[in-house]
Amino acid sequence: MTDTTTDTAGTVDATERAPLPGPGEQHEAVEILAAARRYVDPELRRAIDSLPGSLRRIALYHFGWEHADGTPAAGNAGKAIRPALVLTAVRALGGDPAMAVRAATAVELTHNFTLLHDDVMDGDTTRRHRPTVWTVFGEAGAILAGDALQALAQQLLAEDPHPGASEAAARLTACVVELCAGQLADCALEDRSPDEVTLEECLAMAEAKTGALLGCACALGSVYAGAGRDETEALDGFGREAGLAFQLIDDVIGIWGDPGQTGKPAGADLAARKKSLPVVAALASGTSAAAELAELYGRLPGTSRGERAGGEGAGADALQDAARVARAVENAGGRDWAQVHAADRMSRAVDQLARAVPDPESAGGLLALAEFVTRRTH
Amino acid sequence: MTDTTTDTAGTVDATERAPLPGPGEQHEAVEILAAARRYVDPELRRAIDSLPGSLRRIALYHFGWEHADGTPAAGNAGKAIRPALVLTAVRALGGDPAMAVRAATAVELTHNFTLLHDDVMDGDTTRRHRPTVWTVFGEAGAILAGDALQALAQQLLAEDPHPGASEAAARLTACVVELCAGQLADCALEDRSPDEVTLEECLAMAEAKTGALLGCACALGSVYAGAGRDETEALDGFGREAGLAFQLIDDVIGIWGDPGQTGKPAGADLAARKKSLPVVAALASGTSAAAELAELYGRLPGTSRGERAGGEGAGADALQDAARVARAVENAGGRDWAQVHAADRMSRAVDQLARAVPDPESAGGLLALAEFVTRRTH
Repeated sequence: MTDTTTDTAGTVDATERAPLPGPGEQHEAVEILAAARRYVDPELRRAIDSLPGSLRRIALYHFGWEHADGTPAAGNAGKAIRPALVLTAVRALGGDPAMAVRAATAVELTHNFTLLHDDVMDGDTTRRHRPTVWTVFGEAGAILAGDALQALAQQLLAEDPHPGASEAAARLTACVVELCAGQLADCALEDRSPDEVTLEECLAMAEAKTGALLGCACALGSVYAGAGRDETEALDGFGREAGLAFQLIDDVIGIWGDPGQTGKPAGADLAARKKSLPVVAALASGTSAAAELAELYGRLPGTSRGERAGGEGAGADALQDAARVARAVENAGGRDWAQVHAADRMSRAVDQLARAVPDPESAGGLLALAEFVTRRTH
Repeated sequence: MTDTTTDTAGTVDATERAPLPGPGEQHEAVEILAAARRYVDPELRRAIDSLPGSLRRIALYHFGWEHADGTPAAGNAGKAIRPALVLTAVRALGGDPAMAVRAATAVELTHNFTLLHDDVMDGDTTRRHRPTVWTVFGEAGAILAGDALQALAQQLLAEDPHPGASEAAARLTACVVELCAGQLADCALEDRSPDEVTLEECLAMAEAKTGALLGCACALGSVYAGAGRDETEALDGFGREAGLAFQLIDDVIGIWGDPGQTGKPAGADLAARKKSLPVVAALASGTSAAAELAELYGRLPGTSRGERAGGEGAGADALQDAARVARAVENAGGRDWAQVHAADRMSRAVDQLARAVPDPESAGGLLALAEFVTRRTH
């Protein structure tokens, strides 16, 4: 157990920890995200439209622009957090966001390539309130569309005349390797029993899976603003720390969130025996609730694709089990630990941000985004 | 049926079609391939060694440098045809191959990323005489290692100060999209009955799956030699045509080759109901042998992963079926058609090569490589 878990057993009211963002801050983030969508969507559409027919159809479905039958859909391509970080970082360092649209789009394509592949590996059947690509177009379709999106991301940077494009490409590819290592670690953790998994391993996995790309997005903004190495590294650190805070909150929502809002079934993470951070912290808490939890968690049904498919009829039992596990995680302090630890990561993020962008007004947009994603209830 | 199939019914002795390469030519290709390995291997090892532990182990196994248990292996990373094309194209156009080692390595990494993913999708269990990565490290391991190799390929180009690196990256990413479209077409073709598939579709699929990357390899050599657009396009065409010839011969070997030399079981392509080009040409020949073949081919057992795993006990029957199908394809003229058509593609390749490199002596290396890969019996 690492020393980051020393406050696991404490019970703290989340609202006491730090002031929630005021309506102004929340509003600012929503505006930034909407603006990022407006900047990035035409470039994203252009990139997707350049794909050959069969791959294009899969990508258009994935981004929510088409239904499975190829008819147009209203579109739900996600919240555009990563491209917003690129563009907002450019602005924070005095650059022109319009010059970094390709880089922002490349980051969004990269994120979506990993989603397509992760859903295959994890056997997840729902994303953004719709059936995942592999359930509609088959595993090969999802793997190949993901491969093509990774290629498109790099193509945008290779064809970008901006002087920072090569450095951005090198950073983004290094980030992809880290994302892959994180996902591989996640898959390996699923096969191990909870008492063999340390919180340190899980935090490292979360940093690779989630922190790395948020950090890379901010770093690319810095590169495109022409900032120096110190600023770029500090912004990378800001994104990583905020990303870990985001993951912690996401894990909390994954266990206790409202399925109508999260777009995935309640307890899905628990049913998949994911080593989500609150669970691992709870198991490591040394409380009697932890012992009960270990027993309960070990009893959850297996999660290989075949077992899950066969077990769908037993859905009610699985959900009841998940609810019991969720209560045990909470009793063992896992929920509180995650919220306290998220606040700690956010404070480290703020320190890094101040190093890169000392002027609070210039840093405001990035801060608003970080606050938004870590306080989201949706 | 396209007019390229008009000679399907003819029976020609393969040795009459075109002179086999003399011992000198064969020897030259072997030397070029060995030199390419020497150029590329250190860069390839460096790239693989930069991966985090878990991904590195999978990649080292895939390239034959480690056994599954992590102990060192003698290494069998394939024939290095694609990097050899890059380096030989550079030399043919008067450039220095040493300057293009990263580009050659990027092409080799890209090729291997597609092998890792294709083996998952096709359920292939043997590659280079060893169990495929997904059978040893799981599907997630193979998908993620493939993703990481694609990223490494682009990283090499992004970090390459050569003035042609960006154009090379743009070409290579466009090629990856084409490779993905080709593999997706291949998967889609497997689900269709033989009489629904046209030879034209199969040739387009083969060009995307195999021709595109050989063409791209040659084009990257041209870009790195600083040649003009015309030369680059002509060399791309040379590689594509030679690639199609290569695929035709590869399909012939896939049906009639010696398993001890091909490294995969006899009739594997037939058992997997692959729409290999000789089969489709035979089915389209309108002969009575074609009708018999259609009936036989339709009766082969299915090939979904589950069915194949369950059917392994019935291996003897499947092999007998495959032998019967192979004879029917031959009787319907499929084998001869493939060999004649391969010679035709080779002659188109030679025309394109002469456009890019008019001096026969300078063009000799590329020609020797093309002859080598299309006449291989190993």
